[in-house]
Amino acid sequence: MSALPASERKLRWGFMGAASIASKNFHAVKGSARNEIVAIASRSEEKARSWAAERGIPKAYGSYEALLADPDIDAVYIPLPTTLHVEWVSKAAAAGKHVLVEKPVAVTLPDAQAMIAACRAANVVFMDGLMFQHHTRTARLVSELRSGTIGDLRRIDSGFSFSGDADFLSGNIRVKASADPLGCVGDLGWYNCRFALCAFDEVPTHVTAVCHAATPEGVPLDTSTILHYKGDARAATFSNSFRTAFRQWAEVAGTSGTLRLDDFVIPRSPAAAEYTLSQEAGPVDDHRRIDDKITKVQVMGCVQESQMFDDFATLVLDAPAAGARHPDCALWEGRTLQTQAMVEAIMTSIKAGGARVPVPAVEL
Amino acid sequence: MSALPASERKLRWGFMGAASIASKNFHAVKGSARNEIVAIASRSEEKARSWAAERGIPKAYGSYEALLADPDIDAVYIPLPTTLHVEWVSKAAAAGKHVLVEKPVAVTLPDAQAMIAACRAANVVFMDGLMFQHHTRTARLVSELRSGTIGDLRRIDSGFSFSGDADFLSGNIRVKASADPLGCVGDLGWYNCRFALCAFDEVPTHVTAVCHAATPEGVPLDTSTILHYKGDARAATFSNSFRTAFRQWAEVAGTSGTLRLDDFVIPRSPAAAEYTLSQEAGPVDDHRRIDDKITKVQVMGCVQESQMFDDFATLVLDAPAAGARHPDCALWEGRTLQTQAMVEAIMTSIKAGGARVPVPAVEL
Repeated sequence: MSALPASERKLRWGFMGAASIASKNFHAVKGSARNEIVAIASRSEEKARSWAAERGIPKAYGSYEALLADPDIDAVYIPLPTTLHVEWVSKAAAAGKHVLVEKPVAVTLPDAQAMIAACRAANVVFMDGLMFQHHTRTARLVSELRSGTIGDLRRIDSGFSFSGDADFLSGNIRVKASADPLGCVGDLGWYNCRFALCAFDEVPTHVTAVCHAATPEGVPLDTSTILHYKGDARAATFSNSFRTAFRQWAEVAGTSGTLRLDDFVIPRSPAAAEYTLSQEAGPVDDHRRIDDKITKVQVMGCVQESQMFDDFATLVLDAPAAGARHPDCALWEGRTLQTQAMVEAIMTSIKAGGARVPVPAVEL
Repeated sequence: MSALPASERKLRWGFMGAASIASKNFHAVKGSARNEIVAIASRSEEKARSWAAERGIPKAYGSYEALLADPDIDAVYIPLPTTLHVEWVSKAAAAGKHVLVEKPVAVTLPDAQAMIAACRAANVVFMDGLMFQHHTRTARLVSELRSGTIGDLRRIDSGFSFSGDADFLSGNIRVKASADPLGCVGDLGWYNCRFALCAFDEVPTHVTAVCHAATPEGVPLDTSTILHYKGDARAATFSNSFRTAFRQWAEVAGTSGTLRLDDFVIPRSPAAAEYTLSQEAGPVDDHRRIDDKITKVQVMGCVQESQMFDDFATLVLDAPAAGARHPDCALWEGRTLQTQAMVEAIMTSIKAGGARVPVPAVEL
């Protein structure tokens, strides 16, 4: 790191791969306050050079190793296929680079544990690239839920899907067993799992999951999941699909109301985001009468992808002392491991024909 | 029936029981064009008399048998506890009365089959008391779905719940094994099953259902259900609960759009009802950009509970000839049997700890 005070320093990023999500995150870094992108690496040096030239990035590398060897890079962003994460997160950590990795983090829970162990051993920050958690709306609605606005929390139902065309369904990296064998469970369900963790602040004990459609290789294209919680107070369901129109809603239901988001993954507008609180008494006597109390709550605008990079930068630049990790690192690592454990249980349940299976315990 | 022409005749109703839903349906009959209520029966003659007096109903009976013996009654409405339906529907049919019975129709599929067989044998009309199907909105949205507005139909997700207080959860008839052993599956899930039948026009082959909370007697209070369909094109999930705030949403997702209702069971306003069509392309390139195409479609107002009675009256008064049943009778009976078969499979799955179980075949 440079000798500037933390408040003036910027975190210097290298991007490992020129996937389309990397382009989105290039804009995210540009829009953030405490980050800059200084290098891009691709297996094709030519592709790296043209990607860098188009965006005014100083350095371009034709291999990931070369990028990791660059001493002027503090942190790397890894949007590689999931099957490559464990190798490259571990190598990045060993090279002393902080790591932001795309979701799903790993194919298996042990792989995710290995990545996080490597980052801890190297004293570098680890975070998965889940933007919605960084939006001010998420903090606001969690606080709303904790304050009892909708009573005791009982259920979460959510859906996240998009419509892949024939090309996508037959050939995209996200439906190839060699690249992303978790299919829609890892690419989409990861968000529903994380939303449930944020809203309930509780890890389910078991899951029941069904795969309605898969590729010939067995990669899930369309799934339904039920989450079971300790005791009998809570439950959740969610659906994921690469075969229906874009949907991204989530509803938390409590004993006295509901909180709903129509756009929980990617807010429709960067200028303001909403959630809807409802307290409907239902039919209350012998004739139709529903007492509506529906409020749309506006939350100040937030560019969540830039906020993600700034939250990441905080973990590095505002660490209490050289060599000491920021105390919030454990929170992000914990959420990743819990999410990965849920995804692991979903895949196990699917392979067992929809059996109820336990969510593996994780050490945080 | 009187000698008036069908267009001037009214169907003469006897209500069997003075439950609160009977009061709602008294108003429904009053608001309908082709029906009148001429008698009420209760096990307590005093209660029947005061109920009749308050509402200006000519006759009050202290037993259901007495009401069924009245030759001036064409049709009976049966809002009795579910466990009593098979006995009283059969007796009503034997007495030559047309039958409108509250949902859930029966505790078991064989009971439902017995009721419908009794009605067919007696040449009387059978219908379950599911109001939402009679709303013009339902016909409109079914036509919208058939016309391909949202592409090929893929998924339905829906939720129906209300918050029962401690008294309800410990003592209400709807959570007593002796009265309504299906609990929230029969009282609420019945609607979600029927909605799926209406929207897909297809019976699921299997269900996976989980009970998250039950009474000490084992009556379901909170459940999650996954519906499996033939092949791999379609799927559905729904949640039901007596323990969360009032919720009644349903969303149908196709390959190119979604159709959503926020109030599918009881429209918020009798003056107009809505559904929302969305065609969102999702994030389409390297930076945030969601192409929204969201349309709220208004449907002309409809008092669905009165429309239900008028639809019923049509089946009786507009039958092609004396002794010949209206051809639409088979549609309503079929929907009831299909719904009951789905509910039966849900209960079987719950008892088997959430196993995937087949939906019993029904003869229509």
